[in-house]
Amino acid sequence: MLRHVVLLTWTDAATGEQVAEIARRLRELPAAIPEIRSYHCGDDLGTNPANADFVVTADFDSVDDYVVYRDHPQHRKVIDELISPILASRLGAQFPLGG
Amino acid sequence: MLRHVVLLTWTDAATGEQVAEIARRLRELPAAIPEIRSYHCGDDLGTNPANADFVVTADFDSVDDYVVYRDHPQHRKVIDELISPILASRLGAQFPLGG
Repeated sequence: MLRHVVLLTWTDAATGEQVAEIARRLRELPAAIPEIRSYHCGDDLGTNPANADFVVTADFDSVDDYVVYRDHPQHRKVIDELISPILASRLGAQFPLGG
Repeated sequence: MLRHVVLLTWTDAATGEQVAEIARRLRELPAAIPEIRSYHCGDDLGTNPANADFVVTADFDSVDDYVVYRDHPQHRKVIDELISPILASRLGAQFPLGG
């Protein structure tokens, strides 16, 4: 089992409506991609000032299953049409769960 | 319930032994901090070239419980003594689970 984590920061031009639509569309992915074992995303709570703006965490049984998600057309469509236009920075990682 | 996520990148001088010791010491925190509901950390698997080097994810019932962990002396000791000396960059966020 592995966990995929992404931290996103939005441009100043990003609106709350745009971000809410991204969350809504991302949350449709588990129904379309059976390789996803667990999926969560949401806005940073604002507890720490230097935080990123948005988080995705997703668990998979294998790297191959993660790659299915990463490259899935419905996921790429959300990235290309909704995320990329308001993206200031992105940092991700995948690590083994159980550690 | 909320999830805390941190992505760390190490300096070129960081050794595998130093990082393994950080993971070992972080994994002792759930036994010392009962506010932690779930705790995982580990090295990035190297699947994507632009990834961070190390991940921590931790779940808490509330922001207050997360702050107990964030500011706990045993946690700060790992940060000050082991993480900070080899830290190139850090990005974190906390978001509501169930979303």
